[in-house]
Amino acid sequence: MIIIKEKEYEPKYIQIYQYFKHQITTGKLVAASRLPSTRSLADSMGVSRNTVEAAYQQLCTEGYLTSKAGSGYVVLPFDVSLYNDSALEKEEMVFEEENSNTDDDKRIQFDFMYENMNLDDFPMRAWKKALNEILNSSNVDCFSSYNDRNGEREFRVEIMKYLYFSRGVRCKPEQIVLTSGTISSLSLLCQLFMSEYDSVAVEEPCYNSARAAFKNHKMQIKPIPIEEDGICVSLLKESKAKLLYTTPSHQFPTGKVMGVNKRLHLIQWAEEKDAYLIEDDYDSELRYNSKPIPSMQSLDYKGRVIYINTFSKAFVPSLRMSFMVLPQSLLKRYHKKFSKYNCTVSWIEQKAMQAFMQNGDWSRHLRKICTANKKKHDMLLNVIHQCMKDKIVIHGSHAGLHILLEIKNGMKEKELIRSAEAVGVQVYPVSVHWANPQNYNDNMVLIGYSSLSEEEIKEGIHLLRSAWFDFKVE
Amino acid sequence: MIIIKEKEYEPKYIQIYQYFKHQITTGKLVAASRLPSTRSLADSMGVSRNTVEAAYQQLCTEGYLTSKAGSGYVVLPFDVSLYNDSALEKEEMVFEEENSNTDDDKRIQFDFMYENMNLDDFPMRAWKKALNEILNSSNVDCFSSYNDRNGEREFRVEIMKYLYFSRGVRCKPEQIVLTSGTISSLSLLCQLFMSEYDSVAVEEPCYNSARAAFKNHKMQIKPIPIEEDGICVSLLKESKAKLLYTTPSHQFPTGKVMGVNKRLHLIQWAEEKDAYLIEDDYDSELRYNSKPIPSMQSLDYKGRVIYINTFSKAFVPSLRMSFMVLPQSLLKRYHKKFSKYNCTVSWIEQKAMQAFMQNGDWSRHLRKICTANKKKHDMLLNVIHQCMKDKIVIHGSHAGLHILLEIKNGMKEKELIRSAEAVGVQVYPVSVHWANPQNYNDNMVLIGYSSLSEEEIKEGIHLLRSAWFDFKVE
Repeated sequence: MIIIKEKEYEPKYIQIYQYFKHQITTGKLVAASRLPSTRSLADSMGVSRNTVEAAYQQLCTEGYLTSKAGSGYVVLPFDVSLYNDSALEKEEMVFEEENSNTDDDKRIQFDFMYENMNLDDFPMRAWKKALNEILNSSNVDCFSSYNDRNGEREFRVEIMKYLYFSRGVRCKPEQIVLTSGTISSLSLLCQLFMSEYDSVAVEEPCYNSARAAFKNHKMQIKPIPIEEDGICVSLLKESKAKLLYTTPSHQFPTGKVMGVNKRLHLIQWAEEKDAYLIEDDYDSELRYNSKPIPSMQSLDYKGRVIYINTFSKAFVPSLRMSFMVLPQSLLKRYHKKFSKYNCTVSWIEQKAMQAFMQNGDWSRHLRKICTANKKKHDMLLNVIHQCMKDKIVIHGSHAGLHILLEIKNGMKEKELIRSAEAVGVQVYPVSVHWANPQNYNDNMVLIGYSSLSEEEIKEGIHLLRSAWFDFKVE
Repeated sequence: MIIIKEKEYEPKYIQIYQYFKHQITTGKLVAASRLPSTRSLADSMGVSRNTVEAAYQQLCTEGYLTSKAGSGYVVLPFDVSLYNDSALEKEEMVFEEENSNTDDDKRIQFDFMYENMNLDDFPMRAWKKALNEILNSSNVDCFSSYNDRNGEREFRVEIMKYLYFSRGVRCKPEQIVLTSGTISSLSLLCQLFMSEYDSVAVEEPCYNSARAAFKNHKMQIKPIPIEEDGICVSLLKESKAKLLYTTPSHQFPTGKVMGVNKRLHLIQWAEEKDAYLIEDDYDSELRYNSKPIPSMQSLDYKGRVIYINTFSKAFVPSLRMSFMVLPQSLLKRYHKKFSKYNCTVSWIEQKAMQAFMQNGDWSRHLRKICTANKKKHDMLLNVIHQCMKDKIVIHGSHAGLHILLEIKNGMKEKELIRSAEAVGVQVYPVSVHWANPQNYNDNMVLIGYSSLSEEEIKEGIHLLRSAWFDFKVE
């Protein structure tokens, strides 16, 4: 018997639908049973025929019933043994918030995180203005569309101009592809190359996220040691790899710069072997005692360098905006492979960044963060030298947003990090960036300074001194 | 001789740097040559020693010089033959906009595109408000960070609630992962499975972009024919695939619904074979003559269904926001594999969507677009029936944002599309969605209606009648 409850939130047809669904899934109504006609059920229940019809239709659509001309609605075969209604119902939904913060997080007072930015350095007012101008513009039709799968063309023209003047990169807008992060760029490149190449050479050490991306695409990793002026070319040649991922202008994490001669030799190697170089130029705007090193792409007239970069370092990571510059020689293959893909970057934010670049806010911002980070960098180095004197060596300074700090107190990485945590300071491991950590002399930590204020940097370093050298808090 | 030009935009040290760089790259200064001391050059040029020092330092950093204690600055070996300065300089930068619109685009008056939305259906005011509230909020610190790599937790809680009430999906927030589009979801899933599985079963026909994504990850495609109630299970079993990509609630492109019994059998198959089902639930909110079909995930208590969905169909594509719901059984593997990846969706837009869901705007919006699209859908069907009577068959109606139109005038797909274009109407091919187009009876076109107004739909269909049946424009 179907009892209609006058519940506002459950229409009558749904109640009828649920009644019969339950009968079928519990085996009470078996295959080939005929349901009452819509007219008779409607009459007996005091509802309209349309209501019953709607319930029966829903059951038909979902595959519980079929309607046969002349014989009305008939139950379809249903395998009750496969349907575990009680198991489904038992599993209860939990809507409460779980507290995912652990106590550990709260103990850290100064976090020398590498990746995040300081919000004070961010031009929030100009950015809001740019976003709202797009939202209010008459040309917002594109908002409801998929749009250009490589990114908005006018935005790519701005990126092209910026890259030319600031990084020496020579390209046309059609060579630029917007992506939602460096990993996304690398994933596309893996897809582009994986039918041909099954391995990739990386610097040793190398940004561990990049290595993870290659591994996840089943690319065999060939770690090639870094020398003073960049990757060891003879070992690269021995590796037989046809693809190299490199950070020539600010090697991650060591901070070394690849010399011009080595750059030219790499391009020659790529030309000879039909290989490609992925140049990750992630933070090369930020040089504090010289002008930025020209990109490797700027030396490449053989079409062998794939240039990738991100707005995460010089702008903000939360935007998820990165890009690649493909050599002309790869465009045809790229477009063939990805003709069905859509752009993965929000349209509004592309247009806002375009406006931001066009009106000069972008270059103003770059100058500002360069100055702000140079100040922090210089201060960091001063405080470290004052505090720790000759018991430390600083590697990879004068650029970017991090340094490596080698500590000569006999502690190994794990102990260095643990004792820093004990005084409320977070510093980061270097070993994770090594493919073979056993090759690495384990006495450094990675220190980022972009997300802390100058005062915080000072206090943090004093605490580190107490953790590593005094063995007591001052 | 270095001649300093008093050009505002080129500092003196850059001019000195460029002079020596040119001397070295053209072979005029060879390896081991000693440069003039900073003091003597500064004196002879009438610039400060710091200026010369800066130029020399830049040349050292880039790998042209080295400084040796006692002997000053010395030129490093440089392979002139690898450096093609003139080739680099010849290639001129083109900053003009190229006109990428072809004349073809302009001839199309009515575009029955499937993918785009109608901006009139979009709650622009509420969305702007949500965005600006986030930008103005005090909690905007996250803006300068990478944040949760699966997406903001509070946003995932909102998605979880919505999925439970509207699609019957039962999950916890930690099972949800935000991505920047369906292809991005599939790319992550390919990376998750590719070390184990080298093939994937797909429906035949199947959304061609999904097939492209699998192919690009070197997954072998096993197309399994569609029957009236969904994929042919016996052929799926024969294929030996361990992964199935399926659109059970609104098969793309046919519009068919997979019956409940077949859904249960698929889950059983997956359980038995240690296989997984990828359920793409892309537009299942939009049902016009019944309530939405419950998701396959809602029947799965074996942890075999990976549920994926997107905000592109029910909201806007330009946001690039999609998500997956992973079964508990895959979480450990997922987190291990992707611990170094970052979320690919803009933080501001995640928070805006969260607010939009929390304040009820999202469910209001869903009701609104369902009503608006039902109206267009009904009108489209009416006009087609009126215009083309029994010379056509409509497939896959009463749901989503597209139909398939079978035209019985003897024309094949290419001819149907070409003759439509000749009267200024764009309709879309179905054959591209077949892995083996030769198995397909080539007399249909795909018609989307979400981006056109009712008036445009009416005019467009009348033009199609003239193209396909009258052979003259009325």
